[in-house]
Amino acid sequence: MTNWQRPESATSTALLTDKYELTMLSAALADGSADRRCTFEAFARRLPDGRRYGVVGGTARVIDAIERFRFGDAELAVVSEFLDERTVRWLRDHRFSGDVDGYREGELYFPGSPILSVRGTFAECVLLETVILSILNHDSAIASAAARMVRAADGRRLIEMGSRRAHEESAVACARAAYLAGFTATSNLEAARRHGIPAAGTSAHAYTLLHTTADGRPDEAAAFRGQVATLGVKTTLLVDTYDITEGVATAIEVAGPELGAVRIDSGDLGVWAREVRGQLDSLGATGTQIVVSGDLDEYAIAALRAEPVDTYGVGTALVTGSGAPTAGMVYKLVEVDGVPVEKRSSHKVSKGGTKSAIRFARSTGTIVEEVVYRTSVPVPESDGLTGRPLTIPMIRDGVREPDLPTLTESRDLVARNLVSLPWEGLKLSHGDPAVPTRFVG
Amino acid sequence: MTNWQRPESATSTALLTDKYELTMLSAALADGSADRRCTFEAFARRLPDGRRYGVVGGTARVIDAIERFRFGDAELAVVSEFLDERTVRWLRDHRFSGDVDGYREGELYFPGSPILSVRGTFAECVLLETVILSILNHDSAIASAAARMVRAADGRRLIEMGSRRAHEESAVACARAAYLAGFTATSNLEAARRHGIPAAGTSAHAYTLLHTTADGRPDEAAAFRGQVATLGVKTTLLVDTYDITEGVATAIEVAGPELGAVRIDSGDLGVWAREVRGQLDSLGATGTQIVVSGDLDEYAIAALRAEPVDTYGVGTALVTGSGAPTAGMVYKLVEVDGVPVEKRSSHKVSKGGTKSAIRFARSTGTIVEEVVYRTSVPVPESDGLTGRPLTIPMIRDGVREPDLPTLTESRDLVARNLVSLPWEGLKLSHGDPAVPTRFVG
Repeated sequence: MTNWQRPESATSTALLTDKYELTMLSAALADGSADRRCTFEAFARRLPDGRRYGVVGGTARVIDAIERFRFGDAELAVVSEFLDERTVRWLRDHRFSGDVDGYREGELYFPGSPILSVRGTFAECVLLETVILSILNHDSAIASAAARMVRAADGRRLIEMGSRRAHEESAVACARAAYLAGFTATSNLEAARRHGIPAAGTSAHAYTLLHTTADGRPDEAAAFRGQVATLGVKTTLLVDTYDITEGVATAIEVAGPELGAVRIDSGDLGVWAREVRGQLDSLGATGTQIVVSGDLDEYAIAALRAEPVDTYGVGTALVTGSGAPTAGMVYKLVEVDGVPVEKRSSHKVSKGGTKSAIRFARSTGTIVEEVVYRTSVPVPESDGLTGRPLTIPMIRDGVREPDLPTLTESRDLVARNLVSLPWEGLKLSHGDPAVPTRFVG
Repeated sequence: MTNWQRPESATSTALLTDKYELTMLSAALADGSADRRCTFEAFARRLPDGRRYGVVGGTARVIDAIERFRFGDAELAVVSEFLDERTVRWLRDHRFSGDVDGYREGELYFPGSPILSVRGTFAECVLLETVILSILNHDSAIASAAARMVRAADGRRLIEMGSRRAHEESAVACARAAYLAGFTATSNLEAARRHGIPAAGTSAHAYTLLHTTADGRPDEAAAFRGQVATLGVKTTLLVDTYDITEGVATAIEVAGPELGAVRIDSGDLGVWAREVRGQLDSLGATGTQIVVSGDLDEYAIAALRAEPVDTYGVGTALVTGSGAPTAGMVYKLVEVDGVPVEKRSSHKVSKGGTKSAIRFARSTGTIVEEVVYRTSVPVPESDGLTGRPLTIPMIRDGVREPDLPTLTESRDLVARNLVSLPWEGLKLSHGDPAVPTRFVG
């Protein structure tokens, strides 16, 4: 019996980076600038086109990746091919020893929110750019799209089933980000194992097609009998392989009115949901639920809100960020030895200085504004409003803080955050960020 | 010194799948249908909106993933939670023992092309659905977008630098797919290590911002001196941190006219490329090249074709498939015990039967049509045209065939394929597939 390695605990993240991070390290070690105290900040200059808010995803994975950012023999062999000896020696003993502050996973973010603040020497901070951005950009894009779907589903169950449309490891992170945002379950087993997310599954057309009569004709009833015999009457039968109306009739004939659910994966889902609900009810299967799937995105989910749908299965649109597959965050040097620095070339202005953020809400809980401020100024206040600090310590002197939010806690945070947005900020239609951001510093 | 595990050789792919593959296996083992001889086929029903061709990417990774599709103790522990003992026992000894045929990595594909044909028992074939599709859909989406960029660049160098905009493992596969399609190099070091792809890098704004005078003012010259001292005069200096014209002047002042290249990452790249070329030439730096980057996609690359650009750095658009982040391939049961099967519900008709494909070209090499045929009929011919078989054996009785194409061979194949398309099929504008596909069987 083989014991396979688990990728997320046994592997280094040190090469999940760009070559230029290392050549810059090399130049900085040579010219004496490598040890200057720096702050790098991860933030989004803007939200994807028309989006009203973003959801921070991936923070916990970032912290893990920083801990595994270590150069073993295999990693050193690669970088030795283009680096000088001093740099290779430096990398051999390297581990991040600085500080990280940032938004909790599950916080909402807006343009300019200082989502992650990384402080330490230039050398140790610059190396982390690519892997930090890879994780934040991916997971936040998926969490942000997923949150819109969760809102659109308005309390109905959502199953993430997009693994087959995403890179095989991205799929695991997509399942995690969807769950973070409020999805009920995932089809992905590695996500269940690695992150403890509930796994769910229905049935496949292949299983129905597999069942034929002795003379080669389709035998949907045999497939349903096989599935119910093994998985029980509470299973979900896929009724659209041949003819949906016949499929539903056969399903109830085989499983009886106690059948858990039927799934419809094609056709006009709204029309079919109504038809099938009527048919199920007329057959006495009033408790049999309806699962719909097939190219659903937040708009299609919302459009089905008046229909008798119990569960949505969402695939492609979820794992591709529903039109915004990356969050577009950047990681910029904002402070050197206590002095703010900023790039000044056209269209890419960033605000220098180490920053924190606080969000102000009315007594009703509705957010009014986000204030981003330099840590060098007093914490801002806002008349008559309650402020909630958004920035928390995550790593101190290279050591992970205890009591960082768990995935479950972050999931609860998303749910609380979504109800704190002004009503119009939750609309699916295009518009400005749901709340304004004010900069103080 | 730690020796970190390498993810691609040490890890099982068995949980990179959907729960329902395993519950279907369980039902099939129970009702006796698990051992029926099946063919599953991976194909795309359509190309992404407006695309004229697709490029098959990921085939070599699929073959690897099938070999590592094994259940060790950790994997069995997960599936034991919801599977019966017989199924768990079956999985413990399981390894794929069937056959795989398919398109070489680097082949073009069109709607209905039988890209991968997997034959064996239902049990062993159904389990592979998700991981096969994850890899093919991701890598083909990236390779297809990359090929359009390569065509648009018309012989100029392309560096893939999108890692920070993609999931950290997806980034490695993106680098590979871009190289497959004809990109020159990647910024991603793990892609260099794992796949032997040339790594490249320039410099970062952070390194320039790091350098300040004693009284805190920007010191671009100090940054350039530091970089040239360590990386040599053939390095690429990033000239747009503050003012591009001043940056170029400083760069040549520091490095001399032998400087390798300057990089412009912001502003109107066409205008700046011309300005900077003139400035470099007037400074005697006629051999100093110009690298441009910043939200480039195939259209922006094409729009710069008349400008004095030597190298394009491409990030976000590459790793997001330039509007088509997944290839949308499906994996369908097409034959059971020698009899074709097909799903008949609305809008999702697929053609049953095990298939191969052949592509016909004129004597000039220009492709005229692709013919997809059931393996039960004779290989089709086409009057006066030369046929090239597209389907090759990849796995026989569970064992990988020797002499499968290497990444370099597949890269050459893409290059040959692109010049074999009819001229109008290579246009970036929207249109039908570049060549028609005929079905015989």
